[in-house]
Amino acid sequence: MRKGVMRPGHVQIRVLDLDEALQHYTDLLGLIEVDRDSQGRVYLKAWTEVDRFSVVLREDDSPGMDFMAFKCLDEAVVDGLAQELRAYGLPVEEIPAEELTGCGRRIRFQAPTGHFFELFATKEQTGKWGIHPSNPEAWPRDLKGMGVQRFDHCLLYGDDLDGTYDVFINILGFELAEQVMDPDGNRVAQFLTVSMKAHDVAFIKHGEKNKFHHASFYLETWEQVLRAADLIAMTDTSIDIGPTRHGLTNGQTIYFFDPSGNRNEVFCGGNYHYPDYPPITWDADQLGKAIFYHDRQLNERFLTALT
Amino acid sequence: MRKGVMRPGHVQIRVLDLDEALQHYTDLLGLIEVDRDSQGRVYLKAWTEVDRFSVVLREDDSPGMDFMAFKCLDEAVVDGLAQELRAYGLPVEEIPAEELTGCGRRIRFQAPTGHFFELFATKEQTGKWGIHPSNPEAWPRDLKGMGVQRFDHCLLYGDDLDGTYDVFINILGFELAEQVMDPDGNRVAQFLTVSMKAHDVAFIKHGEKNKFHHASFYLETWEQVLRAADLIAMTDTSIDIGPTRHGLTNGQTIYFFDPSGNRNEVFCGGNYHYPDYPPITWDADQLGKAIFYHDRQLNERFLTALT
Amino acid sequence: MRKGVMRPGHVQIRVLDLDEALQHYTDLLGLIEVDRDSQGRVYLKAWTEVDRFSVVLREDDSPGMDFMAFKCLDEAVVDGLAQELRAYGLPVEEIPAEELTGCGRRIRFQAPTGHFFELFATKEQTGKWGIHPSNPEAWPRDLKGMGVQRFDHCLLYGDDLDGTYDVFINILGFELAEQVMDPDGNRVAQFLTVSMKAHDVAFIKHGEKNKFHHASFYLETWEQVLRAADLIAMTDTSIDIGPTRHGLTNGQTIYFFDPSGNRNEVFCGGNYHYPDYPPITWDADQLGKAIFYHDRQLNERFLTALT
Amino acid sequence: MRKGVMRPGHVQIRVLDLDEALQHYTDLLGLIEVDRDSQGRVYLKAWTEVDRFSVVLREDDSPGMDFMAFKCLDEAVVDGLAQELRAYGLPVEEIPAEELTGCGRRIRFQAPTGHFFELFATKEQTGKWGIHPSNPEAWPRDLKGMGVQRFDHCLLYGDDLDGTYDVFINILGFELAEQVMDPDGNRVAQFLTVSMKAHDVAFIKHGEKNKFHHASFYLETWEQVLRAADLIAMTDTSIDIGPTRHGLTNGQTIYFFDPSGNRNEVFCGGNYHYPDYPPITWDADQLGKAIFYHDRQLNERFLTALT
Repeated sequence: MRKGVMRPGHVQIRVLDLDEALQHYTDLLGLIEVDRDSQGRVYLKAWTEVDRFSVVLREDDSPGMDFMAFKCLDEAVVDGLAQELRAYGLPVEEIPAEELTGCGRRIRFQAPTGHFFELFATKEQTGKWGIHPSNPEAWPRDLKGMGVQRFDHCLLYGDDLDGTYDVFINILGFELAEQVMDPDGNRVAQFLTVSMKAHDVAFIKHGEKNKFHHASFYLETWEQVLRAADLIAMTDTSIDIGPTRHGLTNGQTIYFFDPSGNRNEVFCGGNYHYPDYPPITWDADQLGKAIFYHDRQLNERFLTALT
Repeated sequence: MRKGVMRPGHVQIRVLDLDEALQHYTDLLGLIEVDRDSQGRVYLKAWTEVDRFSVVLREDDSPGMDFMAFKCLDEAVVDGLAQELRAYGLPVEEIPAEELTGCGRRIRFQAPTGHFFELFATKEQTGKWGIHPSNPEAWPRDLKGMGVQRFDHCLLYGDDLDGTYDVFINILGFELAEQVMDPDGNRVAQFLTVSMKAHDVAFIKHGEKNKFHHASFYLETWEQVLRAADLIAMTDTSIDIGPTRHGLTNGQTIYFFDPSGNRNEVFCGGNYHYPDYPPITWDADQLGKAIFYHDRQLNERFLTALT
Repeated sequence: MRKGVMRPGHVQIRVLDLDEALQHYTDLLGLIEVDRDSQGRVYLKAWTEVDRFSVVLREDDSPGMDFMAFKCLDEAVVDGLAQELRAYGLPVEEIPAEELTGCGRRIRFQAPTGHFFELFATKEQTGKWGIHPSNPEAWPRDLKGMGVQRFDHCLLYGDDLDGTYDVFINILGFELAEQVMDPDGNRVAQFLTVSMKAHDVAFIKHGEKNKFHHASFYLETWEQVLRAADLIAMTDTSIDIGPTRHGLTNGQTIYFFDPSGNRNEVFCGGNYHYPDYPPITWDADQLGKAIFYHDRQLNERFLTALT
Repeated sequence: MRKGVMRPGHVQIRVLDLDEALQHYTDLLGLIEVDRDSQGRVYLKAWTEVDRFSVVLREDDSPGMDFMAFKCLDEAVVDGLAQELRAYGLPVEEIPAEELTGCGRRIRFQAPTGHFFELFATKEQTGKWGIHPSNPEAWPRDLKGMGVQRFDHCLLYGDDLDGTYDVFINILGFELAEQVMDPDGNRVAQFLTVSMKAHDVAFIKHGEKNKFHHASFYLETWEQVLRAADLIAMTDTSIDIGPTRHGLTNGQTIYFFDPSGNRNEVFCGGNYHYPDYPPITWDADQLGKAIFYHDRQLNERFLTALT
């Protein structure tokens, strides 16, 4: 958090059918619907999050990610980073407060990999869902489905990894936690963090710009990953792979798809990071094991099913 | 245990290279070597087993299972079942005591699916490994690898499922715990038990006789299944599939191969059975989900990689 | 199961306030109410049980256990055991079918420790709760509270342990799985089984006859024991001790009280038993560790809070 | 990490017998001995830590904590904070590089609660123990005992909580994550963090200065807490309480004592913190539940057994 960016704040996801999507994200993942706006967007949050919302669903003709936003310490940080981004040559758009209900003004820019990111500092804090703010119980009794704990990170595919690296590391104050290097010394995967987490956002090298691989949600235990897998089977939800472990980050994970074809991950565990920790490096010829530690090979879907 | 057969007692497995196999079964699975005999066979046990050994490795030119044995309450049970088997028309071979070191006389017959089974009642009881017989600690501190708890069951492929069913149910007193039925009412998978376990031995319909699908070992928890998967990756052991859950039995499982190509399973959890419980039935068109509950489809290897 | 007794079939528990008790056993433990009868008794079952009910609550002025019943293979077994009990000198009462709704005739006797036990062979089988009988999902999605899997066993306090041992072992065909012996060679705790379980019923030496220590319900995992403990705290339920592990049986456990003061246990894991396994023996001077493996000392409540 | 303090770096603990202590911290907790110095001190680390050591044992006549140190981003941070501490009126001692082998210069001050704290920025980085720096396996196979992952935090008892709060929050840039307030609005417990962790150091109100309650080590799972409890029993180590859950932080925990009477904790899970999160507050009349969520009452030892 060298520059005042704290954490992933929200992600806006395009879905083909809002009702189907909503059932998926609430009944299966256990996100809680907190609001709808005049554009028809639905706002969701995970129960441990203090802010009002973290996921926004927008109905559209094609699936994918509209933008991912990071919450900053205060408005001065947002102002300063906006200035630095512009100085770097990136156009920065101002989104007024309440364009997303309950959220203050945001600034938006497009990273060299083509993805849209936002920074903001103000969002209504409604507290953890389902437990009292004082003398709080350990967890709320009426969670649904997987009961995910928080929106954790996104993995994005794009072309100009070095450009996006430069923006996130040198302007936004992220750190490189883990990476995959090809034999020519090119970084083909970069896992970036502004916290103790192994990644707050990650990028994998890909021919096209602005592709969305997955949005990831945090679970507390490997047993919850099993129960998530069970729920995926029970609800006849399209599975990608898992339960398994990642070599990169060491998280324990399962991947599946929402009804629009957007990939979701739920996971637990994994490495922690501090600013003085050297990045963990995997060689590209070990990419299979880096991604899926147990199978030690990629499934084709992981590389090609993008939105 | 209607007829006095208690449990799987041992399995003799053929391996191509004894040293490699031994390292696999001891360092990785955590079986304990307890003996070798003049034929060069190696005897292993799992730590919670009271009897002297449960796995016998024999070096040979081709992998596979020589025989699987069940322990009976007493010698009278063995005598009575031998007589019934003969009356049924199955040749029964007498194996003298100490042909396997520490084991009493066994009788051996070939089931209609082509597999060789043995019955015995006497084997030296050396007690659980690594803990005192009185005031015992919860577990021994110096287990290796997966630290498997017991040899649990075998899954075997063969042609005449009905014939073997008849022998196990009507002569040996097993019960049908779970099954897969095809649309014509033929049983294509039968999970048989003489205990509370969901299976002590299981059979899947297959064109050839006497094929060995896997020997299975019991773990205590889903976290141990994860650590087993990690160990499989660390030791570069050939994995089949997992961690995942079975629909049949509900066990949580991972499959992998020993250096000779024999499949192993380690698993935890799963259904329990009582004699008055109706068999749990899956339809053949749900076979994928019945076998791999999360993926809901079979991998080709599961059906064809046999020894 | 040498004599045809299969498992604990039901327990009838006296409670001071039926509504309070019902909320405890359904909302907290997750038992499912299945029936009420003209006497005002409420019938409950746990979700993995195939039979119609396993717990009966009866409102009365004092808490405690009315009787515990074991299900037998068939009516002939019940007849034979009734005859043996009478021959042994124990009066046997016949309870007609449907005295408990959905249950066939039962026979009842009082064991030397003063507790009433029943044997029966017929009870309506309604199947596992919440899942289809064919192609069953792994678990039902709408379980409440702890979601206990089955009524597992009772622990009873009484004076004449040797007498009850004799009846259970020599007449009913139970086996001694685990025991605590005092320096004079007297058995002060006996854990008896008719299955692979470490205990189907257990007795601890005590000055009075016919005292009820606890009814125990099975959970699948140590994480479910944690969540049970959390729920006990959230609902301000009176706790006894736990989460912890037993030395005897090695089960992982937590004890608490229903609103009438009857103790409940929920637990997972633990040893398995076969007929040829020698009993596991703890010395009385290790009783603390035998009961509570981690603390290695008894709390006073464990010995004195009885109903 | 507003002011550049990153994390707990090390703790120096006084023990009565170095050999006994070493066996406790290595064989039982699973710390790894990495060095000894000319003063006879022994240096230990936990396997996931990148720095050379995190625990220093010093033989002395009385147990307790000599000092706890925090690692800072760089030497400039240390210089700046030293200046601020002095300006605040606290004497600051300079400890030269290599006074602790492998560690750069440290500055030391005494907090108003009487405890000695150090700041440093330089320590040799030897990498995670037992795994390769590139393409790393998930965990090393030869960990001992509990295999603790990292030195996580200390809980300290002292008188002037407000004074120490002022120093940590306003000078060192810590944040208040969780607290216990008495009815008069006095903070009687304060859990302070410079990271996402629920606490990097915590203080409880107490009549005396400079008392050491415990040093805490991180485990990955609740199952590892169970195995830690088992190991405590097996090694006849003095237990305090657990396994249980804290209300404060929600961690899952067990407390026990080293042979010198210093309390240790191993724990997993718990809340995460961000700078904009309001502190979680428990009322003093809920202190029992705040500390031990399941029992909802303190044991006397927790309040009085200090070193």
